[in-house]
Amino acid sequence: MQADQHITADFQRVRDHSVSLVEGLTAEECQLQSMVDCSPLKWHLAHTSWFFETFILKAHKPDYSAFDRQFEYLFNSYYNGVGEQYPRDKRGLMAQPGLEKVLAYRQHVDSHMCALLAAPISDDIRQLLTLGINHEQQHQELMLTDIKHAFFINPAAKPFSKAPIPKADFVSHDWQTVEEGIYQIGFEPAFTGPKFCFDNETPRHRVFCEPFEIATRAISNSEYQKFIDAGGYKDHNLWLSDGWAKINSEGWKRPIYWRYDGTEFTLNGWTKRDPNAAVKHISYYEADAYARWAGARLPTEAEWEVAATTAPPPMNDVWHWTSSSYAPYPGFSIAEGAVGEYNGKFMCNQYVLRGGSQASAEGHTRISYRNFFYPDARWQFSGIRLARDIQ
Amino acid sequence: MQADQHITADFQRVRDHSVSLVEGLTAEECQLQSMVDCSPLKWHLAHTSWFFETFILKAHKPDYSAFDRQFEYLFNSYYNGVGEQYPRDKRGLMAQPGLEKVLAYRQHVDSHMCALLAAPISDDIRQLLTLGINHEQQHQELMLTDIKHAFFINPAAKPFSKAPIPKADFVSHDWQTVEEGIYQIGFEPAFTGPKFCFDNETPRHRVFCEPFEIATRAISNSEYQKFIDAGGYKDHNLWLSDGWAKINSEGWKRPIYWRYDGTEFTLNGWTKRDPNAAVKHISYYEADAYARWAGARLPTEAEWEVAATTAPPPMNDVWHWTSSSYAPYPGFSIAEGAVGEYNGKFMCNQYVLRGGSQASAEGHTRISYRNFFYPDARWQFSGIRLARDIQ
Amino acid sequence: MQADQHITADFQRVRDHSVSLVEGLTAEECQLQSMVDCSPLKWHLAHTSWFFETFILKAHKPDYSAFDRQFEYLFNSYYNGVGEQYPRDKRGLMAQPGLEKVLAYRQHVDSHMCALLAAPISDDIRQLLTLGINHEQQHQELMLTDIKHAFFINPAAKPFSKAPIPKADFVSHDWQTVEEGIYQIGFEPAFTGPKFCFDNETPRHRVFCEPFEIATRAISNSEYQKFIDAGGYKDHNLWLSDGWAKINSEGWKRPIYWRYDGTEFTLNGWTKRDPNAAVKHISYYEADAYARWAGARLPTEAEWEVAATTAPPPMNDVWHWTSSSYAPYPGFSIAEGAVGEYNGKFMCNQYVLRGGSQASAEGHTRISYRNFFYPDARWQFSGIRLARDIQ
Amino acid sequence: MQADQHITADFQRVRDHSVSLVEGLTAEECQLQSMVDCSPLKWHLAHTSWFFETFILKAHKPDYSAFDRQFEYLFNSYYNGVGEQYPRDKRGLMAQPGLEKVLAYRQHVDSHMCALLAAPISDDIRQLLTLGINHEQQHQELMLTDIKHAFFINPAAKPFSKAPIPKADFVSHDWQTVEEGIYQIGFEPAFTGPKFCFDNETPRHRVFCEPFEIATRAISNSEYQKFIDAGGYKDHNLWLSDGWAKINSEGWKRPIYWRYDGTEFTLNGWTKRDPNAAVKHISYYEADAYARWAGARLPTEAEWEVAATTAPPPMNDVWHWTSSSYAPYPGFSIAEGAVGEYNGKFMCNQYVLRGGSQASAEGHTRISYRNFFYPDARWQFSGIRLARDIQ
Repeated sequence: MQADQHITADFQRVRDHSVSLVEGLTAEECQLQSMVDCSPLKWHLAHTSWFFETFILKAHKPDYSAFDRQFEYLFNSYYNGVGEQYPRDKRGLMAQPGLEKVLAYRQHVDSHMCALLAAPISDDIRQLLTLGINHEQQHQELMLTDIKHAFFINPAAKPFSKAPIPKADFVSHDWQTVEEGIYQIGFEPAFTGPKFCFDNETPRHRVFCEPFEIATRAISNSEYQKFIDAGGYKDHNLWLSDGWAKINSEGWKRPIYWRYDGTEFTLNGWTKRDPNAAVKHISYYEADAYARWAGARLPTEAEWEVAATTAPPPMNDVWHWTSSSYAPYPGFSIAEGAVGEYNGKFMCNQYVLRGGSQASAEGHTRISYRNFFYPDARWQFSGIRLARDIQ
Repeated sequence: MQADQHITADFQRVRDHSVSLVEGLTAEECQLQSMVDCSPLKWHLAHTSWFFETFILKAHKPDYSAFDRQFEYLFNSYYNGVGEQYPRDKRGLMAQPGLEKVLAYRQHVDSHMCALLAAPISDDIRQLLTLGINHEQQHQELMLTDIKHAFFINPAAKPFSKAPIPKADFVSHDWQTVEEGIYQIGFEPAFTGPKFCFDNETPRHRVFCEPFEIATRAISNSEYQKFIDAGGYKDHNLWLSDGWAKINSEGWKRPIYWRYDGTEFTLNGWTKRDPNAAVKHISYYEADAYARWAGARLPTEAEWEVAATTAPPPMNDVWHWTSSSYAPYPGFSIAEGAVGEYNGKFMCNQYVLRGGSQASAEGHTRISYRNFFYPDARWQFSGIRLARDIQ
Repeated sequence: MQADQHITADFQRVRDHSVSLVEGLTAEECQLQSMVDCSPLKWHLAHTSWFFETFILKAHKPDYSAFDRQFEYLFNSYYNGVGEQYPRDKRGLMAQPGLEKVLAYRQHVDSHMCALLAAPISDDIRQLLTLGINHEQQHQELMLTDIKHAFFINPAAKPFSKAPIPKADFVSHDWQTVEEGIYQIGFEPAFTGPKFCFDNETPRHRVFCEPFEIATRAISNSEYQKFIDAGGYKDHNLWLSDGWAKINSEGWKRPIYWRYDGTEFTLNGWTKRDPNAAVKHISYYEADAYARWAGARLPTEAEWEVAATTAPPPMNDVWHWTSSSYAPYPGFSIAEGAVGEYNGKFMCNQYVLRGGSQASAEGHTRISYRNFFYPDARWQFSGIRLARDIQ
Repeated sequence: MQADQHITADFQRVRDHSVSLVEGLTAEECQLQSMVDCSPLKWHLAHTSWFFETFILKAHKPDYSAFDRQFEYLFNSYYNGVGEQYPRDKRGLMAQPGLEKVLAYRQHVDSHMCALLAAPISDDIRQLLTLGINHEQQHQELMLTDIKHAFFINPAAKPFSKAPIPKADFVSHDWQTVEEGIYQIGFEPAFTGPKFCFDNETPRHRVFCEPFEIATRAISNSEYQKFIDAGGYKDHNLWLSDGWAKINSEGWKRPIYWRYDGTEFTLNGWTKRDPNAAVKHISYYEADAYARWAGARLPTEAEWEVAATTAPPPMNDVWHWTSSSYAPYPGFSIAEGAVGEYNGKFMCNQYVLRGGSQASAEGHTRISYRNFFYPDARWQFSGIRLARDIQ
C-alpha cells in the first residue's frame, strides 16, 4: 500500500530528526529544565515515543510488551485519561532513565512501529500515526526553544548550533489590503493540500471581516529598537493593564534575549543583533504595546488566515501573535478518549499565533495552523506582524 | 435646558442611591476589604466622588478648590494618567478618612456639581457627567458584591439586607433558535434607545453567526446541584486545563457561597437554597464545565447579543458568562486622556459577561453592555446560560 | 482579704487603662490590622477579656453565661487546648462585633469578675487573675506598636498621641564592668520584689559568665545615623547571612520608621528625629550589624540580667536585643492545660529582648523579664545595647 | 618536612575520596539539584577545588594561571569577599562545565597543589590547606545527603550504594549521669588530640551545667514508630508552635524517607526499616516533639560535650540535634578576609547538631565539633538523643 509506505517514510524521517537534534549534546545538556514551561530534551525524546507506545502500540498491538512499565507514568505529559503524571516541574530531576536508555527506548518503539507498519494498517492507526508524527514535530520546535532558554541561563554554555546565521536583507514594510466580506477559515483539504490538520483547525467555517490591511512582513530588530529608544517600556499608555503590571514586576526593559550592548542570545550563542531580522521572543504584551505605539494593532486570527489565502504570509521567521484568544471554532468537537485532551482543554487564557518560525519543523505548519501560548510567554520564536483598520 | 435638568436629576438620584446602600451599616463594615479584588464601601463612595472631582470639577471649574488634596492619590483607582495610586491591596487600611469625612466629601462634590449643573454645560462636560453616573452605577453593583464577600468572611456578620427574598417559580428550560446570518452588534442609539454606552460597546459592526440555539433562562440551583451530584467537580474530562488546576489547588467542590448542608450565603445571611433560582457566583471555569457536562456550550457574546435583538434575554438575575475573551471591537479606539484608561487597557485575559444581575443598578445595563472578569472570579452575581450548535 | 483588694484594684486599673488607649480613636481605626503580626485594637480589647472569661469565669464560675458563644472562637489567639481559632490574618475583617459591642463585652466580663472578686478567691484563681492582668499589660504594649504600624501605612492618619515628646539630653556612652563568675538568673521573689513572673523566667538557676562590659545606655539616633552614613547597610561583612538576605530582598536602607529627610514616624505623627534619643524599631539583624560595626557585640540575656543586679539597667526607652535565642531555662516545665501554651511553645527561632520600652505598661517588667521576637521584627520599640569581652 | 608529607597525604586521600563518591554515577546523576538546599555532586566536586584554587593557589602562587576564569564566579558558594556568586538555586542548570571538565579541573588544581606542597609551605598556607581538607570532608557528607534526596525524587533511580546495610543489634536505652559543675567546652588541642578545629569551636571556655542525664544512644526506628502510633503528629501539645505550623502546612506525617508500608529510602534504595537502627532524617521540630512525648528533652550542646568528655558519645550513626541555637562562643572572633565568612555569618536561626553520622567523613568530627542546620531540615542524617534534668 503506497500510502503506508509514504507515511512510514515520514515516520522514520521525523523520528530520526528528533535524535539528530541532540547530536553533539552531552547527556547533561539533554537533562536541563530551566523553567517549568520548558522540558529537558531527553524528556521530549521520551515523551514523543511514549505517544506512539501509548496510543498505538499498547492500544493496537496485543502482544506488545512495554519497554519499561514506569515510563507510562514518567513520560505522560498531561493526559489524565491515561493516568497520573510525573510532576511537570521536576522533569529536570530524572537522571534515570539516562539519555542512553531513552535512545534505546526510541529504538524499541521504532522497531515495533516499523513491524506494525510493515503490514497494512487500519484507518484508526493511520490517523494516530499521523497525529504522532505531527505531535513529534511540535516537540522538535520546543526542543529548540527549550534548549535555547537553558543555555541562556548557563554562562558557560557552548553554542547549540554552529551553522552560520544568514544576514537578513532589508525589505520594505508594506501593507496588503483585504476587502470586507464573508470568508471561510479553518482547514479545508482540497484548498490547502496536505491531508492532516489538528482538531483545533476544524471545522472550516464562515467569518465576517471588516476591511483591513495587514503588514507584508514582521517587525524587525531595528524597528523594535526604536520603540525601546522612544521609551516604549516606560509609557503606561501603550500597555495593557496586565502587561504593564508584568513588565514592572519582572523588570522587563527589552526582549528576553537582548542585552543592552546590542547583542542577543541565539542558538549560536551571543551575537550582534541583525537590524533587518525579525524581532523574536516577544510576549503578547510586548507585541500589543509595540502595535499601539506604531499606530496599528495585531491582526485577528481570522484576518491573518483570510489574508493568507490571497497572498502568501511572511512565514518561517517568527510566529505572529494575533489578538485572538484561543477558543474553539463554531461546531468544534473533541475526539473520544485521551487523544481528545490534545487541544480542547487548553482553549482558555492563551492567545493564538499564526504562521510558523525558523524553529518549526519543515513542512509542519499551514495557513490554518493555530499555535497558542500565554500572553507573557517569551521563550518562543514569536514576533510582531501589524494590521490596521481601513476607515 | 431640559436635557440638563434630566441629567441633573439622574446625577442626584444615582448619587443618593450610593449613600443609601450604606444606610444601617457601621463605619467598621464600610471599611472592610476582604480580598484584593474587593474594595471597602467607603472607598467606593469616595472613588466615585473622586471621578467627578477629577474629571469635571478640577478640569472644568477653574475656581474649584479640592476638598482634600491627598484624595487625588488616595482614591485614584488605576488612572496612571492622573498620577500615582494608593496601593490597591491596602484600601482596607484607610481608617482616615473616616466614613463621616467621606460622606462630607460626597456632599462637597455634589454641591459643587450642582452649582455647575445650574448653568448650561458643554457637551464635553455632559459626556463626562454621563460617564460618571454610569461609572457610579457600576460601583453600586460592586458595593453589593464586595460587602457580600466581606460579610461571608466574618462569622458574626449581620444580614446586609432584610428585604425578603422572593421564592423563584419553576420555569422550563427552553431554547431560542437563531438562524445563520450577518448580524450587527454593538451600541446603536436608534435601535436600543438610551443615549449612553461605554466605549467598549462601540463601534457597531457586523458579525457572522452560524445557526445556534440559546437557552431561554439561566441554569438553576437544582440543575447545578445535579452536576455536583454527578461528580462534576471530580471529572477532569469536563474541565479546561486551567480550570482543573484551579479547582484542585483551591479545593473548590461547590460554588463559593454554598455550604454542603443545602444553604447558601446571601445578602440576607445564610439561607436555604431556592431550587428554582438561578445559580450564582459561578466562575467561568465552572460555567464552562457545567455546559460541557450538559452537552452544550456557552454562547459567544455575539450570539448572546444577536439573540437578544429578537427575544428579550433573561436578565436581572445573573450575568451570563460568554465564551468570548474580552477584546476590542473592530475599529475600536480609545478616548484621549486619562478617561481613555476606562476600558481598553483591560482587554486581555478576561471573559465577557452579558445581561445584568439582581445587583445591577436599575436601568444601567442594555443588550450591548459588556461586563468582564477573570475566569476564576466567583464573587460576582455570575451564572450560566447555555447555547448549542444546530447541526 | 487585703491581698484580694489589692489585686482587684490592679485588675480594675489595668482593665481601665486598656480602654483608655482607644479613647479618641474611631471604630475604624480600632479595626486596622496592617500586617499579620499586628492585630486590631478592638481585637486586643476583646482577646484580653476572652482570657479572663475563658480561664476564670467559664472555668471557675459555674453559673457564668457567656456574653456571646461565638467569641470563644473569634478571640482565641493561639490556644489549641481551648479549640479552633479564627484565622489570625483576618482579624482586621471582623466588622462584627463592632467596637461598641466589644466594649460591652469588656463590661460584662468586668462586672462578673468583680462579682467573683467580691468574695475570697482560691489560689488557683488568684494566679490566673494575676496572669490575666500581666497578659493584658503585654497587649497594652502591642496596642501601641500595632496602631503605630497601622497609622504609618495610612498617609491620612491623625497623630495617635498629642502629648509632647520630651527632648532627650545627651548622655555619654559608658561601660559597666562585670567580673567573671557563677551568677544566678531567673525570677526570685525575695530578691526582685514583685510576686509575679511568667513561667519562662523560671526556674532561677546558675550561669557562668566570662568577664564582660556592657553599655550604660542604648545607642542613639545620631550614633545609628553614623552607621548608615558609613555604608552600614551596604557592607556584607557586617551582616549575618540571613540578615544580609533580608535587607536586600526587602530593600531596607534605614529603620522602618525613618525617612531619608531626617524625620521619623512616631505616635505623634512625622517628627524630626531627636539625635540623643535611643534608636527604635530596630530588627535583630540591624542591631547585630551595628554592634559588629561598632567593634562590639550584643549581650547574652544572662549577661544582661547579671549586669542589672548590680547596676540598674537603662530601661523604659527601648527593649534591648540580646544575642540569646529564646529557649527554656534549665528545669523549666510547662503548666498543665491551655494556659501552658502561654510561653513554652514559642521557644524556637526567636531572640530574647530585655528591659522594657516607653510603650511598656507601668510596672509591668522586671530584670528577669524575657520578651522575644523573630529577628526580622521591626515594629516593636526595640533598640541596641552593646556589650564586649574583656580580654 | 614530615608534617607537610603527612598533610600532603591527607590532601591526596581526601581529594581522591571525593572523586570515588561519584564512581559509577552518570554525568546526569551528578548534575541533579533536587531542592535549593542541595547541590549537584558535580558542583561539590568543583566548589571544593575552587576553595583550594581561590584561597591557596591564586593567593599564594604568583605564577598560577586559573583553569577557567569563569569558575571564580560559577563555583563560589557564598563568599561575598571573593565576588558575586552564580545563583544557588540554579546550580542544577550548569550543564557546562560537564562532569569530565570538572574532573579535569580537579586534576589541574591537584597537580598545582602537589607542586606547591613539594616545597616547604608557610604556616598560613598550611592552615588554609587544613581548612580546605576539612571543608572538602564536609562537602563529602553533603554529597551523600544531596544525592540521597535527588534519588528519592526520581522513581527510576538506581541504588547509590550496593554495600549491604548491616542489621543493627538491640541495645538498651540507658542514661549517663553528669554532676553539676563548671566545665570547659570548646576545642582544646592537648585534650582532644587532633590539631585542627573550625573557628566556631573556639575559644575553649567555661560553662556551668546543672546536673543532668543524657541517653547512651540515639532513639531507634521502632521507638520513633511508637511515637507515630501514639498520634504524635496529631497532638499539638507536643510541638513547638513553628513546628506545628510546619507539619500541618507541609503535611508531614512521618520522617521524610519513611513510607507508610514499613520501608524507608536509603542510599541502597527502598528497604525494610530496621527496628533497632537509629531513626534518621529527623528535623529539629520532630526531635523536640519526640523528646517532649518521651518525657525528656534535647540536650544543650554544652551538656552534650561535657557528657562526651567522660563517656564516649554514641557517634557515627546520626547527628544529634541539641536545643542550642547556633551562636558564637564567648570571645569568638572571625578570621580576616573571605575565609572569615566560613562560619560566623551563619550564627542565627539554626540549631547545633553534635556527634557525626554514618555519612560523615572518616576522622572528620570530634567532640567539640559543631554542625548546624535550620530546624526544618530533614535531608541530613540527623536523629534524636534525649536528655533530662535530675531533680
